[in-house]
Amino acid sequence: MKHAVVLVSGGMDSALTLAIAKGLGFTCHALSVDYGQRHRAELTAAMRVAQVFGAAEHHVQKLDLRHFGGSALTADIAVPEAPSEGIPVTYVPARNTIMLSLALAWAETLGSDDIFCGVNAVDYSGYPDCRPAFIDAFQTLARVATKAGVGGEQITIHAPLIAMSKADIARRGHELGVDYAITVSCYQADDEGRACGKCDACRLRAQGFRDAGLPDPTRYF
Amino acid sequence: MKHAVVLVSGGMDSALTLAIAKGLGFTCHALSVDYGQRHRAELTAAMRVAQVFGAAEHHVQKLDLRHFGGSALTADIAVPEAPSEGIPVTYVPARNTIMLSLALAWAETLGSDDIFCGVNAVDYSGYPDCRPAFIDAFQTLARVATKAGVGGEQITIHAPLIAMSKADIARRGHELGVDYAITVSCYQADDEGRACGKCDACRLRAQGFRDAGLPDPTRYF
Repeated sequence: MKHAVVLVSGGMDSALTLAIAKGLGFTCHALSVDYGQRHRAELTAAMRVAQVFGAAEHHVQKLDLRHFGGSALTADIAVPEAPSEGIPVTYVPARNTIMLSLALAWAETLGSDDIFCGVNAVDYSGYPDCRPAFIDAFQTLARVATKAGVGGEQITIHAPLIAMSKADIARRGHELGVDYAITVSCYQADDEGRACGKCDACRLRAQGFRDAGLPDPTRYF
Repeated sequence: MKHAVVLVSGGMDSALTLAIAKGLGFTCHALSVDYGQRHRAELTAAMRVAQVFGAAEHHVQKLDLRHFGGSALTADIAVPEAPSEGIPVTYVPARNTIMLSLALAWAETLGSDDIFCGVNAVDYSGYPDCRPAFIDAFQTLARVATKAGVGGEQITIHAPLIAMSKADIARRGHELGVDYAITVSCYQADDEGRACGKCDACRLRAQGFRDAGLPDPTRYF
């Protein structure tokens, strides 16, 4: 049985990623990070996603990034409700590097060479750590950073959604029976997981369902 | 004023690294990680080191790695008291990757391009994440992973001790007036910071002072 660590945020991208990893035959160890994010409803969603999509286990790692701040998700900075130029203030410094590092630690202790994450670089917010160059650099790092890598294990960072549009993600999930209604993407979701419909994450998500010609199951407040 | 994030473990290597960074004119932001390590006395030592060597501030990031385990420092595995073949069980999976990721997050929010860490690859335990190849790969990653890096900032991972022997480290610290008596290297130090004298970390440290012809200020239990 092949084991994989799957980063699960609670949003639609990581839900599809988990479904894909599972479909490839991996025993999936779901990892979420409680980093003090504003939209804590995503952690509740992550638990549901891990359960519904049959992760073997789910670990929520506590790691409060609010001391560093520097983002609308971890500091007292408003979430923008209109598109902005450049990398938006919802960018969390080094977040994906940190999360993949944690996944790498877990993978190594599990004896797993496979890590999945749901980054995508088509309909996205322009975060640097969602691009193919980032995934490639992390994979190179992983192979020199660990006992497993130095021992010749081909640690692989799988980013199966990296070249997919949000419409592709909506469609593919629909085909695989992924229930996006249980996912939360909104940066300022309320405790019930209801979305604002205005932030970057909401806009990209809603557009994806529209472009795919599929009903949007998101609950808005 | 140039700012730098300096990883400070409480051992002699990171104490010297902090002194070097300070000597280069950096305002130093010391970062330690409380990862559930067996040798908690090193965190107390880290606080002293940060204070004595004039760090502008010191942050101890809580991040419990015991869920992952897989190491004599984070799981119920005995610390070896004799040299072993290959990478020893005190290796903590992905530890330096995780710590540098956290340093990267802090550096970015501080507007700093400089991160210092005290890894060295001469008299060391053979950990993969202490080698030049690891530092190089992390620096490459840092430059594609962050808003600062993508914006053209030349984020640099400084590892000034990487090619130094333990004797070099003892001597250089002596020249710079670094008081190694306040540092703790032992993997199973007691609450007072006294060392076992038997583990890998103790052996390397003691040999360093011997080779340098300097008195060893370590307190043993």
